[in-house]
Amino acid sequence: MWMSELAATSGLPVPTIKYYLRERLLPPGEAVGATRARYDQTHVRRLRLVRALTEVAGLRLEDVRRVVEAIEDTGRPLHDVLGSAHTRLPSTVAPGHGEEQRDRVDALLDRHGWVLDDDSPHRDSLAGALAALAALGRDPVEGLLDVYADSAEAIARVDLATMDWSDRENATEHVVIGTLLLEPVLLTLRRIAQENVSRRRDD
Amino acid sequence: MWMSELAATSGLPVPTIKYYLRERLLPPGEAVGATRARYDQTHVRRLRLVRALTEVAGLRLEDVRRVVEAIEDTGRPLHDVLGSAHTRLPSTVAPGHGEEQRDRVDALLDRHGWVLDDDSPHRDSLAGALAALAALGRDPVEGLLDVYADSAEAIARVDLATMDWSDRENATEHVVIGTLLLEPVLLTLRRIAQENVSRRRDD
Repeated sequence: MWMSELAATSGLPVPTIKYYLRERLLPPGEAVGATRARYDQTHVRRLRLVRALTEVAGLRLEDVRRVVEAIEDTGRPLHDVLGSAHTRLPSTVAPGHGEEQRDRVDALLDRHGWVLDDDSPHRDSLAGALAALAALGRDPVEGLLDVYADSAEAIARVDLATMDWSDRENATEHVVIGTLLLEPVLLTLRRIAQENVSRRRDD
Repeated sequence: MWMSELAATSGLPVPTIKYYLRERLLPPGEAVGATRARYDQTHVRRLRLVRALTEVAGLRLEDVRRVVEAIEDTGRPLHDVLGSAHTRLPSTVAPGHGEEQRDRVDALLDRHGWVLDDDSPHRDSLAGALAALAALGRDPVEGLLDVYADSAEAIARVDLATMDWSDRENATEHVVIGTLLLEPVLLTLRRIAQENVSRRRDD
């Protein structure tokens, strides 16, 4: 397809697409003569992903480029690409002073057979949140964290169950959109469940 | 205890405590003579709750008062008090245009035996998030929402397992702090679990 058709299909204006080409967020089309190029479904998919990252996730173009680079580096396994995307999403918690909770976080990850890159921000996020709870005298019991981790695993399995693993572009979009837009769903269901656990006890 | 001791115990300055008394966020002490009053542990607990609501949850005093009123109205069941507190916490999602998803949300609640007040904001939150997903072509399959709801129920049970149900003040503080500070823990664990589900598949 020509540029004009790519614009119509993706819902993005031509100048925006040209800007993405210059910024290397979109690979070049197949040159046809000196000034024209043809585009295909890989470009449509990439533009969908860039829109999801910028409009839904609110990422800066610099961060979008790093996610895109991870996708294009086909030597990197997919979990590494997903981790790269996660790392650039808005953090779920401000990093706190949780040094004394790091061992506890590592033990939790171990118990659930989870591996985490050394430079992953998740370890500090968890340690910071646990430190904030401890400071308020609400240190969660160990069993609580295990129920959370088991639930997170069940949720992650169903999150990825319908994902097309063969398409790195689409898989990354799936994870980014699913992570961000299903987070409020999960939190809201937890609040509803709390009220109902309490209601049944009252009855 | 006298006001000065209440200030020392709660870590709040005397003028702040006097302000809370005037604003009826704190019940009056027991009058001793014309100008002095004695305070007890109920005042310490209330101040802990007010601090949690203002400093952790970021509530305005007007919303804190409504939570406090719900606690003091002993004719209201506890689940109603917790629901009132939840309603005033920061929403997990901006209300969207999810009218067409309302029936789906109601069916989900029904399947899990959950009751929700007609004026609860949770129904709109869920419908709005589902509408946003559908607009991006990422409408979650029904089974996904059921796994989310089952997980939310397991989490809510463990959230409330260590709660002292006989103390409405303490129970409300438990729910407010636990809801807000454990939310990022849950979301971070979900991201870690996603990366690990993907990692195991890659291996």
